[in-house]
Amino acid sequence: MSNDLFPENVVTTEEKLLYIQELLGEQQENQVCELFSTLTQHELSHTLESFPYEQRKKLWECVPNEIRGAVLADLYEEVRNSLLTGVEVAEIAEITKDLDAQDAAEILDGLAEEIGADVIEQMDEERREEVQGVLAYEEDAVGRYMHTDTVSIRENVKLEVVQRFLRMKDEIQKNTLELMVVDADNRLVGTLHVIDLLKNDPDALVVEIMEPPESVLDTMCAMDAAKYIRSKNHHFAPVVTDCGVLVGQLTADDVFELTLEESEQTVMNMAGLDEDEDLFAPVKSSVRGRTVWLGINLVTAFLAAWVIGNFEAVLSQVVALAVLMPVVASMGGIAGSQTLTLTIRGLAMGKIGGSNRKWLFNKELWIGVINGVVWALVVAVIAHLWFDDVMISTVIGLAILINMVAAAVSGVVVPLVLKKLGQDPALSGAVILTTVTDVVGFLSFLGLATILILN
Amino acid sequence: MSNDLFPENVVTTEEKLLYIQELLGEQQENQVCELFSTLTQHELSHTLESFPYEQRKKLWECVPNEIRGAVLADLYEEVRNSLLTGVEVAEIAEITKDLDAQDAAEILDGLAEEIGADVIEQMDEERREEVQGVLAYEEDAVGRYMHTDTVSIRENVKLEVVQRFLRMKDEIQKNTLELMVVDADNRLVGTLHVIDLLKNDPDALVVEIMEPPESVLDTMCAMDAAKYIRSKNHHFAPVVTDCGVLVGQLTADDVFELTLEESEQTVMNMAGLDEDEDLFAPVKSSVRGRTVWLGINLVTAFLAAWVIGNFEAVLSQVVALAVLMPVVASMGGIAGSQTLTLTIRGLAMGKIGGSNRKWLFNKELWIGVINGVVWALVVAVIAHLWFDDVMISTVIGLAILINMVAAAVSGVVVPLVLKKLGQDPALSGAVILTTVTDVVGFLSFLGLATILILN
Repeated sequence: MSNDLFPENVVTTEEKLLYIQELLGEQQENQVCELFSTLTQHELSHTLESFPYEQRKKLWECVPNEIRGAVLADLYEEVRNSLLTGVEVAEIAEITKDLDAQDAAEILDGLAEEIGADVIEQMDEERREEVQGVLAYEEDAVGRYMHTDTVSIRENVKLEVVQRFLRMKDEIQKNTLELMVVDADNRLVGTLHVIDLLKNDPDALVVEIMEPPESVLDTMCAMDAAKYIRSKNHHFAPVVTDCGVLVGQLTADDVFELTLEESEQTVMNMAGLDEDEDLFAPVKSSVRGRTVWLGINLVTAFLAAWVIGNFEAVLSQVVALAVLMPVVASMGGIAGSQTLTLTIRGLAMGKIGGSNRKWLFNKELWIGVINGVVWALVVAVIAHLWFDDVMISTVIGLAILINMVAAAVSGVVVPLVLKKLGQDPALSGAVILTTVTDVVGFLSFLGLATILILN
Repeated sequence: MSNDLFPENVVTTEEKLLYIQELLGEQQENQVCELFSTLTQHELSHTLESFPYEQRKKLWECVPNEIRGAVLADLYEEVRNSLLTGVEVAEIAEITKDLDAQDAAEILDGLAEEIGADVIEQMDEERREEVQGVLAYEEDAVGRYMHTDTVSIRENVKLEVVQRFLRMKDEIQKNTLELMVVDADNRLVGTLHVIDLLKNDPDALVVEIMEPPESVLDTMCAMDAAKYIRSKNHHFAPVVTDCGVLVGQLTADDVFELTLEESEQTVMNMAGLDEDEDLFAPVKSSVRGRTVWLGINLVTAFLAAWVIGNFEAVLSQVVALAVLMPVVASMGGIAGSQTLTLTIRGLAMGKIGGSNRKWLFNKELWIGVINGVVWALVVAVIAHLWFDDVMISTVIGLAILINMVAAAVSGVVVPLVLKKLGQDPALSGAVILTTVTDVVGFLSFLGLATILILN
């Protein structure tokens, strides 16, 4: 609707992406550049993230100068850094000069330290102080995410005066829902809904209409702040310092992005990936990124192999055990990962704590026992039909039961313990759980076989 | 701040949850009921979701009548249904009577069909039509999620008149960002930012200030609509019918919730869980919910076992193969799940399509080859140190290489094919991938062993 450069049936970002790929395939780079001028900042960052490095670098040249900074701030960190590698300090300074201090700080943070310092060097004093102020916050603090372009008013003025004031102000964000009411020392005393400003008598005073402030601290962890704001049914929150001085606000967008980020992190971390991993990164950096995880997994895999190695005697006598062995480990792994995922999500949402941990443990234990008995019988019957050996069926049935109970228990306990130790349960939970279910699975299956069959 | 019933250090939802658990532990049910009257709707639904069924049912009685409907609509489906089981039709009718049609429809949808019909029966005609209208939409359509309480104005009036009109209106949602401009037939012709209403000359006409409408269709898939709105840098969108008639709006909240839901779904589905699974469900229903997934996994586990079973000859001769076998499957499984997770997220975000699929395939293939070579060498060396047998080391090295390449290829191909078939890649991707890496792993390892060692 808003742009006629795309064919009429190309509307969504996905369709636009396909269309741009098509044009590039036909070497129509100029037309792509023209199209880029009609795209929103989100569409641009989405498109850039959907191209491999070489093409991305070329496409970046088509991004209109005036929104380069905003697009950069919107990109995944890894993608952003790939675009900024080798770019001159002067150019980075130029791109970031109109960004708010938070976005500028985020971009500078990803750069090599000398380059970041050089860019800061080039700023005028006011700007430099502002950006350095943001960089002084911890990386996950509210101060890093907040927007400083708040609209502040005083409490003892009439609504009509506020309206006149707004009319004179240059620019106000279109998504502004509330105005900040501050005292002479810029301390937050309340907030005024834009809607309330419209709905009430123009002669009323701000102080009569405003609501008490529900603010968050600038040093608070941003994800916790987002959770807190959402729990309050609010869409935004003023940000204040320890002394109550207004320094910015978290907008509805910020709150949402923070919440979404946490959810995305879980998916990626559970697979041992960095949440900022670039889908279209060069092979080299991807290989590097995944090495640690594969290395850790190799250690646990050899641990499992070592367990099996202790039972060579029984394995060499009853080869059916080697055949059935993976079934025990696999069923435990699946059952455990279900419990693990539930627990990790529950912890992330703040639903698990206090006495319900015990309840959850008991519940999952019972599920483990019931599922264990059911699947032990099923597996035992199948094993019996296959190998026609009562001992083998008994051994595998018991091992399945033991392993599924162990899986349920560790699915709850592992993330709780990791959380207590200050670790991210999503990051190492899965690998620890698989180790437990592999080791317990092989140990119980081959151990029982040694006792019941070998002797 | 807003309520003095909680101790001063109890601020976040998590802290409140712990405090309520404590009170319940001390049998202070009355005090909990008092506290409940100070909680927001989100805090109430969060608290209810964090208790097992028995206690939840009791706590529900403490939820103030006037927000029961809103809390119900906010709860996970499974939790909501657990609370409504056995509740009288008259009571459900009472609880839902003040909800908007969308929320009411969502609640009724989860009920047994007769009960839902009975509740609808009890509504007055206007309300009934409204709710049935919502229920007529597909379950994932925009019409199910939109809010109908939009504020509509005409284009040829002065801003001053709009302000007077707003002042007379009973109630306007505090998070209203835009007003809808419609013609005499209620067709959407534009939108007016509340901020623009404030900032412009009161004598200006709406038509001079308003922006062209960027709407979504009521029959569109809600998650796609949310993605589209976000791509446009918008926070909300008017909803229109095929003929352009305004029927409601998706608020910023709706857009966020829909986006978040999709992300949560991926985490849960990848573990074979329903995204609405109740963390504190009774054991019975949890066991039932997880059975299908365990059953499917059992089939694939036995498929892997069957593959192994074809190599009893070589296994009975070289027991070291049984010991090392799981290492091959495990390394393939981990490498594959990394590629799979990346691809699934990329697909969900609409970043993969067209020519970049081939690029992604090539990239992951190369990662598979490089990682395959590296880890093949590492594993071969370890195996050699352990068993001191060149043949075994050669076999396991080659098998690791083959399996990691197969893992990389299927990590990309499996979700792409599933998507093409109209299936959710997150739901069945993991189980198919594991099957591939197990089967390929065992087949290549034991097959190579048969060829190289047995002959």
